[in-house]
Amino acid sequence: MNVFIVYAHPEKRSFNSAMKDLAVAALTEQGHQVVVSDLYDMHFWAGAGQGDFIAQSAEPLNLQASQLTALKTAGFAPEIAAEIEKLRACNLLILHFPLWWFSMPAIMKGWIDRVFTYGFAYGVMGGPSTNLAGRKALVVTTTGGPAATYTATTRGTVDDYLKHLLVGSLAFCSMEVLPTFVGYGVAYLDEDARQVVLDNYEAYLEIFEPT
Amino acid sequence: MNVFIVYAHPEKRSFNSAMKDLAVAALTEQGHQVVVSDLYDMHFWAGAGQGDFIAQSAEPLNLQASQLTALKTAGFAPEIAAEIEKLRACNLLILHFPLWWFSMPAIMKGWIDRVFTYGFAYGVMGGPSTNLAGRKALVVTTTGGPAATYTATTRGTVDDYLKHLLVGSLAFCSMEVLPTFVGYGVAYLDEDARQVVLDNYEAYLEIFEPT
Repeated sequence: MNVFIVYAHPEKRSFNSAMKDLAVAALTEQGHQVVVSDLYDMHFWAGAGQGDFIAQSAEPLNLQASQLTALKTAGFAPEIAAEIEKLRACNLLILHFPLWWFSMPAIMKGWIDRVFTYGFAYGVMGGPSTNLAGRKALVVTTTGGPAATYTATTRGTVDDYLKHLLVGSLAFCSMEVLPTFVGYGVAYLDEDARQVVLDNYEAYLEIFEPT
Repeated sequence: MNVFIVYAHPEKRSFNSAMKDLAVAALTEQGHQVVVSDLYDMHFWAGAGQGDFIAQSAEPLNLQASQLTALKTAGFAPEIAAEIEKLRACNLLILHFPLWWFSMPAIMKGWIDRVFTYGFAYGVMGGPSTNLAGRKALVVTTTGGPAATYTATTRGTVDDYLKHLLVGSLAFCSMEVLPTFVGYGVAYLDEDARQVVLDNYEAYLEIFEPT
């Protein structure tokens, strides 16, 4: 299948980056076609706005209306059109990022804001999308804090904090949202403990092994 | 008191912008000093990373460590240093944005990622901040969907989706988080109904009236 990994971390020598590299290798080894958008490498602009569109207008900007028009007229700026085509082509979308302030890094949120466009990612009346429906979506993240702090009886789970993404964005577009993979407390793990996280992630990815 | 409004909307002729202008006028009228960071106007870069710092290093980037060093050495890039000083000076922080994908626009998340820095906004061991503790924080947002869709028994409240911001960011830094002000369904309101939202917002802001 076609796998599209959207990746946001400013440091290529990070553990988060090593996890992303592992996913690329493991999924390729399984026979999948893997495409990566490295948002920091792309210097991806995060602010949805007039820059998303080729045509400039003196009228007040209405993002949804402009997105719908751009979809019908090939009017998206090239960097947006390219991401939409990668999304359109994928069977599995992986959003891969460190948890910053209990959510995505801003550059990843910008990718959602600009690429999950009205009329493409979700329906004209806000209903289920016909374009993303049924595609798989997987969120992979790493935290500074240990797993024990992210429970329903402590500060809340990672999924609680990511509700805006898991429920409000991916499931909203009728994607099949897979269980979040979290590497907890990676900043404070030694090499052996980090290898356990990598091994666990590799084992998780076996669900994508063709049968 | 000193009020710092951080504002993120790409269209100056939007209703969201009108609400922001109302806040500036009402709070100024009450005798407060109001400073606004208009993130789209500032073309604020959202991606936390090496660009946040004056000194460049060949070592792998560790954001927290670099933030701590920058704090001690006046090492932040000017646009970050300026925002930190505005934050340090304020008694009330207002984050003002449209709800996009059930969260902040990316450019606002980038402001949090880059300005809520380690050692300044939160403690070195992840504990309560001594710098932001007790300051008031208010989130003001507008939605496309009507109020009836944002309840505990429907898709969840706006506060549920904003947990990462309200709990994970503002309260995490020991700020006093005020009840979120939401203008619901503003895209579909007529002028009279929009005036009601403005009137309600103006009434809400009376809590800041000096006694």
